Amino acid sequence: MDKARFFSDNAAPVHPAVWDAMRAADAVDTAYDGDRWSQRLNGAFSDLFEVPCQVFAVATGTAANCLSLAALCPPHRAVLCHEEAHIEMDEAGAPGFYMGGAKLMLLPGAGAKIAPDAITARLDSIRNDVHQVQASAVSITQASEYGLAYMSEEVAAIGDVARARGLTLHMDGARFANAVAHLGCSPADVTWRAGVDVLSFGCVKNGGMNAEAIVVFESAKATSDVLPYLRKRAGHLQSKGRYLAAQLLAMVEDDLWLTNARAANSAAAVIAAAADERLLHPVQANEVFMRLTRDEAAALRTAGFDFYDWGVFDTCGNGAARFVTSWQHGDADVAPLAAAIAAL
Amino acid sequence: MDKARFFSDNAAPVHPAVWDAMRAADAVDTAYDGDRWSQRLNGAFSDLFEVPCQVFAVATGTAANCLSLAALCPPHRAVLCHEEAHIEMDEAGAPGFYMGGAKLMLLPGAGAKIAPDAITARLDSIRNDVHQVQASAVSITQASEYGLAYMSEEVAAIGDVARARGLTLHMDGARFANAVAHLGCSPADVTWRAGVDVLSFGCVKNGGMNAEAIVVFESAKATSDVLPYLRKRAGHLQSKGRYLAAQLLAMVEDDLWLTNARAANSAAAVIAAAADERLLHPVQANEVFMRLTRDEAAALRTAGFDFYDWGVFDTCGNGAARFVTSWQHGDADVAPLAAAIAAL
Amino acid sequence: MDKARFFSDNAAPVHPAVWDAMRAADAVDTAYDGDRWSQRLNGAFSDLFEVPCQVFAVATGTAANCLSLAALCPPHRAVLCHEEAHIEMDEAGAPGFYMGGAKLMLLPGAGAKIAPDAITARLDSIRNDVHQVQASAVSITQASEYGLAYMSEEVAAIGDVARARGLTLHMDGARFANAVAHLGCSPADVTWRAGVDVLSFGCVKNGGMNAEAIVVFESAKATSDVLPYLRKRAGHLQSKGRYLAAQLLAMVEDDLWLTNARAANSAAAVIAAAADERLLHPVQANEVFMRLTRDEAAALRTAGFDFYDWGVFDTCGNGAARFVTSWQHGDADVAPLAAAIAAL
Amino acid sequence: MDKARFFSDNAAPVHPAVWDAMRAADAVDTAYDGDRWSQRLNGAFSDLFEVPCQVFAVATGTAANCLSLAALCPPHRAVLCHEEAHIEMDEAGAPGFYMGGAKLMLLPGAGAKIAPDAITARLDSIRNDVHQVQASAVSITQASEYGLAYMSEEVAAIGDVARARGLTLHMDGARFANAVAHLGCSPADVTWRAGVDVLSFGCVKNGGMNAEAIVVFESAKATSDVLPYLRKRAGHLQSKGRYLAAQLLAMVEDDLWLTNARAANSAAAVIAAAADERLLHPVQANEVFMRLTRDEAAALRTAGFDFYDWGVFDTCGNGAARFVTSWQHGDADVAPLAAAIAAL
Repeated sequence: MDKARFFSDNAAPVHPAVWDAMRAADAVDTAYDGDRWSQRLNGAFSDLFEVPCQVFAVATGTAANCLSLAALCPPHRAVLCHEEAHIEMDEAGAPGFYMGGAKLMLLPGAGAKIAPDAITARLDSIRNDVHQVQASAVSITQASEYGLAYMSEEVAAIGDVARARGLTLHMDGARFANAVAHLGCSPADVTWRAGVDVLSFGCVKNGGMNAEAIVVFESAKATSDVLPYLRKRAGHLQSKGRYLAAQLLAMVEDDLWLTNARAANSAAAVIAAAADERLLHPVQANEVFMRLTRDEAAALRTAGFDFYDWGVFDTCGNGAARFVTSWQHGDADVAPLAAAIAAL
Repeated sequence: MDKARFFSDNAAPVHPAVWDAMRAADAVDTAYDGDRWSQRLNGAFSDLFEVPCQVFAVATGTAANCLSLAALCPPHRAVLCHEEAHIEMDEAGAPGFYMGGAKLMLLPGAGAKIAPDAITARLDSIRNDVHQVQASAVSITQASEYGLAYMSEEVAAIGDVARARGLTLHMDGARFANAVAHLGCSPADVTWRAGVDVLSFGCVKNGGMNAEAIVVFESAKATSDVLPYLRKRAGHLQSKGRYLAAQLLAMVEDDLWLTNARAANSAAAVIAAAADERLLHPVQANEVFMRLTRDEAAALRTAGFDFYDWGVFDTCGNGAARFVTSWQHGDADVAPLAAAIAAL
Repeated sequence: MDKARFFSDNAAPVHPAVWDAMRAADAVDTAYDGDRWSQRLNGAFSDLFEVPCQVFAVATGTAANCLSLAALCPPHRAVLCHEEAHIEMDEAGAPGFYMGGAKLMLLPGAGAKIAPDAITARLDSIRNDVHQVQASAVSITQASEYGLAYMSEEVAAIGDVARARGLTLHMDGARFANAVAHLGCSPADVTWRAGVDVLSFGCVKNGGMNAEAIVVFESAKATSDVLPYLRKRAGHLQSKGRYLAAQLLAMVEDDLWLTNARAANSAAAVIAAAADERLLHPVQANEVFMRLTRDEAAALRTAGFDFYDWGVFDTCGNGAARFVTSWQHGDADVAPLAAAIAAL
Repeated sequence: MDKARFFSDNAAPVHPAVWDAMRAADAVDTAYDGDRWSQRLNGAFSDLFEVPCQVFAVATGTAANCLSLAALCPPHRAVLCHEEAHIEMDEAGAPGFYMGGAKLMLLPGAGAKIAPDAITARLDSIRNDVHQVQASAVSITQASEYGLAYMSEEVAAIGDVARARGLTLHMDGARFANAVAHLGCSPADVTWRAGVDVLSFGCVKNGGMNAEAIVVFESAKATSDVLPYLRKRAGHLQSKGRYLAAQLLAMVEDDLWLTNARAANSAAAVIAAAADERLLHPVQANEVFMRLTRDEAAALRTAGFDFYDWGVFDTCGNGAARFVTSWQHGDADVAPLAAAIAAL
């Protein structure tokens, strides 16, 4: 029945290659991140991104995002993000905690994507005086909350606006792999070459257990002096850091991150094809949002499928649902769901 | 050579039974801590401590300690602890971060243990006015930074003082297992029955990978309403929480925590016997602190042993060293080190 | 020319009676707020509000608001307020600082007033889980940013919703006097009797120099244990607190607060009558918002009047302006401005 | 009887010249610190210190100190200060609040003064790793908590150590005037020329009402970009800032600050001469600490004098007391106290 669960990619098992890598790191080694595995992180990500990177492993996406933001934005300033961004909606106020009270400034945008104009308009609305909070950074999500990918040009347009206004650019890449798999671009093109200063590189949703990477590009390398302290101070430096590093290395050293993401994306595409006109957003990653009535949702659940209601049903019983695929879903695994949806 | 490394119990491998438990949790399950494994945590610890407990799994001891303190002490107050406590010396200021600027008030005490009198004296020195920070909690470390265990009566004496003065009592139990193994008491006797409100229950140093438990006893159960939010907000709620829960369950459900701690303590005792008059502190857990000259330290390292210099050598070359054993050290494994020390 | 300045009530002189009261407090007295003047604050405000009050004097409205909110909302929760509220727009992120990262949740509403429905809708949109920030309090502004007064019934409707949902209610009363002068109600009716727990009682804009009062009603009296510490810790306990207390006592002991507010309101009404169809909001306090083209604004400035452009002029030169009157404006003083506006 | 009160210089009246300056600032002017008086602050202090200064007026010494420290030390680092410093003992944890959890590291030292060696020793004890909090700044108090002045050479020696170790230097000058009056040096010699980066310049204890100045010297001018935001965010930017500026200008533009301090110092010297062998510390400012038995203290109080017991009386009734003089005490005013002490 496991293959019928589409609640979240967070529920998937750990990929066998990740398990193997963790086991291989089991010999006694130096504590914290002085071990052989942690020491290889910078190199592995520098290879992947074709540029020197500083990498900090942490256990969760919330930690990766909020440590990044804390390194980019002082307590008295603000970060611009989409009004439905994970950092605003689903991290329990972690940005406020990590940044010492700094503010998230919320922007509208279709599909939970931000357009450069929205950034400009918001910045223009801030009086340049001491009474109003001034902005320090922009944070975008790749893929977005609704599974949409920013193309390299779109990121670059945001990066240009950010740079022109003196802001840095953070990318929440909890599903970065899915976006890159969809775009078919190089990881570099959609990040630092497009103006991204710091990336939260997701691993947990993509077959990892509990490791995410903060990737600091050269434009932000000054933050690498601060991040080790912020991470330790937040309780996110693990004494057996080698088990985190091993997960991340397993992901990036053999392209497992892309292989897994492609599998998940492909499975989502199968569902999307069946959903057709029900779709609320184009499917560019591993999430499918579709219209569903209360009765239809109930029918699918009765048939053994599990998923998340997106919002509440209206008085007529109309609503929406989210289906998330993961690395373990082959196209055949989702065929029963696709058929059930098509048959509604 | 692994068995010759005494730098830190943080460097040891993960115990096979812990690996097995983690693998067993690999099936798809609910995300965050709604899964079957996480749901068993409260019960397992309640059994162990013979009282209803609320348990929150986190990745590190720093997170366990500082979330506990944040739940017990508001930003404008203080926590009393030993001047060499881990929370003061080795957590990079995490208590200040988690508690929103609350203060650690430092107490003296032999062997990094606090005596009730030291608490009373410090509290008496605080004017009861708005200019001085008032205390909310006491935090003690079991076993202490120097590997000394508090007997149940000692904890109870501290608990009595705390209660009488309106303070709560936190126990940093990063090496709780080693202390209990030494004392031979029930876990309950040395915690809630002695006045402990919240315990950081260590697992990583004792054969775990990256899981520690915050154990909330009944006297502090009001904090159980707040801790889930504080944990999430700190990025310490893992989406695949079942792998943390599995580690903790493996530890407590078959007494593995005590088995491992006994092995480590026994190995430490072998070293201690060889060190004899060199010992700086009685050895009651898995840490051995001994006098060593610079030349002696060099000789041991040449012989293949690895350990931590404790402080700096004086101008005559006299100094000290710390040897830490772990679950993987059998008595035979430490015999070569013991012999080498005895031969100095 | 002073009487031609309508930029802000913050620019007005100190009322002579306030000066007199401050001078009368000049004798040596106990430091901090142990002096005779500070000791009378609770009594004076308790008389005014017909109920036992705890009063804390601070220097600014920002401090009054944010200390109040910090006492009502823990760091991991949120305060609901209007999207144009002073605490959101003009306090430089002070709420985030004082509350340790807690969040402001923004509500829409005409005239910068909140309706109970907006509160309910926002609360209903928050999932009751650990991923989303939960609310602790509501903050409303009396009079609102656009000079609108909440009637007692309106406050009570908000108070009822707040109470029903487990929230407390704070009132930012920077222009509380102007609102009460307009409403003609008792101070009690529009505050604690309507569910307000803590009030920021304004004095500076109403003829004071640098004193505002945090007024804690009985429903929130538990916060009176914490507020003295929060105030001191924020550097807002003044060592010569008697000069703050004297200002506040001068305001409330002889109804000066209402006399001054009535004068300001009356002057605003004269301007409003002249502005007529230009008005953007009904004038219920001492602020007049009106449509003005760039040329008209320039003409008024040339004629010697000073005021604040509200927002920016559009490409056709259409825009808006804010005129604020104060205690020192008699109706005759504003007649020239009224005539100039009428003649545009 | 006012002249018989020696409890605190915080209890003294406002000096007539300060009153006059405040009244002179009463005309309508620009709000916040855009007014004519605030605009003159930088110039007036630049003249006094013979170097370009940026000056920020706030209401209290706690605010001046803690805003300064927040500008000099990020949340994850530490400030070194004396273990009896005001920021540690008497500001209710304000440094932790303002600095977002940064730590005070406490140093010993006779007379509450810090020696360069104490700084070096403390810094040397900090491991240069991520587990320990690293220092960013040193804060010294001029005059110290026990009324001792640092000579220019002493400050310079501290400044040299600080600079060599990459730390900045803050001076808490709540009684800076008294120290300079005692030393007879130029204000520049004992501050920026000796390595002080930011000074809290006291006014309230020296005849002011509720204004203190943060004086930023050239070496720290980068903090001038941040301080306006930190001040506003802390609720310490007053809308009628001209009344604060007027107090500070009255102090420094006519040497009133030195005149007042000399009067207070002189009165303290008269008391000190009478106390003779009772003195606990040399008297170099306006504070006299002396041995006094419980009976002697009672006798002096019966005779009408008021003062602060310093600590508690031992079981034999031996204790200590603090007498503080202020600008209003002429030598003749303290003669009765001196006589009473001499007669004990």
